[in-house]
Amino acid sequence: MAEHPLKLIVVGSIGIDTVATPYDRAENILGGSASYACAAASLFSPTGMVGVVGEDFPTEHEDLYRHFAIDLSGLQKKPGETFRWSGVYRDNMDERDTLSTELNVFADFNPEIPPTYREAPFLFLANIHPALQLLVLDQMQSSFVLLDTMDLWINTELELLTQVIRRVDLLAVNESEAKQLTGERFLPVAARKLLDLGPDYVLIKKGEHGCMLFSNDRTILLPAYPLASVIDPTGAGDAFAGGMIGALASTDRVDTATLREAMVAGSIVASFAVEAFSLDRLQTLSRSELNERIRLYRAMIG
Amino acid sequence: MAEHPLKLIVVGSIGIDTVATPYDRAENILGGSASYACAAASLFSPTGMVGVVGEDFPTEHEDLYRHFAIDLSGLQKKPGETFRWSGVYRDNMDERDTLSTELNVFADFNPEIPPTYREAPFLFLANIHPALQLLVLDQMQSSFVLLDTMDLWINTELELLTQVIRRVDLLAVNESEAKQLTGERFLPVAARKLLDLGPDYVLIKKGEHGCMLFSNDRTILLPAYPLASVIDPTGAGDAFAGGMIGALASTDRVDTATLREAMVAGSIVASFAVEAFSLDRLQTLSRSELNERIRLYRAMIG
Repeated sequence: MAEHPLKLIVVGSIGIDTVATPYDRAENILGGSASYACAAASLFSPTGMVGVVGEDFPTEHEDLYRHFAIDLSGLQKKPGETFRWSGVYRDNMDERDTLSTELNVFADFNPEIPPTYREAPFLFLANIHPALQLLVLDQMQSSFVLLDTMDLWINTELELLTQVIRRVDLLAVNESEAKQLTGERFLPVAARKLLDLGPDYVLIKKGEHGCMLFSNDRTILLPAYPLASVIDPTGAGDAFAGGMIGALASTDRVDTATLREAMVAGSIVASFAVEAFSLDRLQTLSRSELNERIRLYRAMIG
Repeated sequence: MAEHPLKLIVVGSIGIDTVATPYDRAENILGGSASYACAAASLFSPTGMVGVVGEDFPTEHEDLYRHFAIDLSGLQKKPGETFRWSGVYRDNMDERDTLSTELNVFADFNPEIPPTYREAPFLFLANIHPALQLLVLDQMQSSFVLLDTMDLWINTELELLTQVIRRVDLLAVNESEAKQLTGERFLPVAARKLLDLGPDYVLIKKGEHGCMLFSNDRTILLPAYPLASVIDPTGAGDAFAGGMIGALASTDRVDTATLREAMVAGSIVASFAVEAFSLDRLQTLSRSELNERIRLYRAMIG
């Protein structure tokens, strides 16, 4: 900490997942938005994690967080069991159905921000209840906040979510969330409406079809890296956003050029993340593999 | 002709369409792959059209072709009625259902290439029966041939279609056709298999999600221009490919840089084409509007 002051704090969920795709299946693997986002971000910047696990949380998972050099001062361990999620992907792997959700210790999660985290310049509010996201915002003094959310909160907590959106710098949504939040069919129109809610930037994540970033005077379009294999799409959006804000945090600047570079970084980290279950591919990813794919991708996008 | 020797010949269908979308409807409008492709191509290069219409073909449509300065030496007028197609788009406008097809004079179409067309360096075989595409290839001496097709021929005339694919330089397919032709789920893998059939380039059109061009040593990725309105997607793929090969023909070179520029041109022409029914938007499109959107798009893709 003294040597590498934290540039970025990520607050999100930590879970034990069971995931089935049409081609494969994995049980009781490490998941959650904070896990994917922190692992991705830590490839670029010193990152601190805020989340909660139960007493059953395997030591090996904590060791894996340490492998990524994630700061765990904000990781709470509470009596009870860790959050569990189970889901199954449909044929095209674009859609999934949740089979079960056990909130466990996550039900009473109260995100407490360690004093050493409060002045970190970048904050990623990964997907958790918007009331908790507001509690985090009240404790932090970050200059750049990225917000992710999900359809559940749009449906059930729209007013609270709108309060959070008003206070962040970059809102990340997927295509259907953008349409759902605005009632607009066309993404540039939806993005304008989302910008009117307060954020300086709106990122629309389109998965295998790339991403778009909108501000009031700029649009940045990126195609996705074309993959020859996808094992598990879980966490791709978190890895994208985590990689993106990690790359931004490493530059300490936010402008069109750094945002574009950060989107490239996020795209490529996400492209690795989906090549295996859980954090398995990010765990073995070398700096030279990462740089080589970024180089290939840059040539493809011109 | 003497002043502007034809650089590009387009062979395809000409039809009278009735189109319904969830938001609008148009009856008896000019359609067909050759109509969209020639109109788009003619924005960049002198283009000759090969196709067939019936005696009922309205003079105003022929006048519209002339408005685009399309050379009509290859346009046959035969006794009988013009090809008619009617279709309805589903909610997301990604998929459509054909309500009726009346081949009429198109059933006996025998594409005869005028002598003045035969040495045109660029040829676009737009979507028609692969047997007819072979007849055209036998009559032409073009150095660069772009081929488009549709799922119908993949299902019913795969052997003939494969013969055509073997003889062209660039194969254009959409995502589902690429998967259907190869049995591969991942586009880079499908593209490799398609390249193995013979073409130097495989273009995968993804509609609102952009396009990808593959060769044995290069990949070019482009996102689509983000539209704030789509009235009718009919002909978007033909306008894209027509604009692309028209732009290529205007440079007289085919290399990575010109292909990328041609894909940009095709993307932007297609983005205008879908803003109205039939060729209505291309008809009113000014050079400055076209150039301005290309400029905006370039800034978005970096």
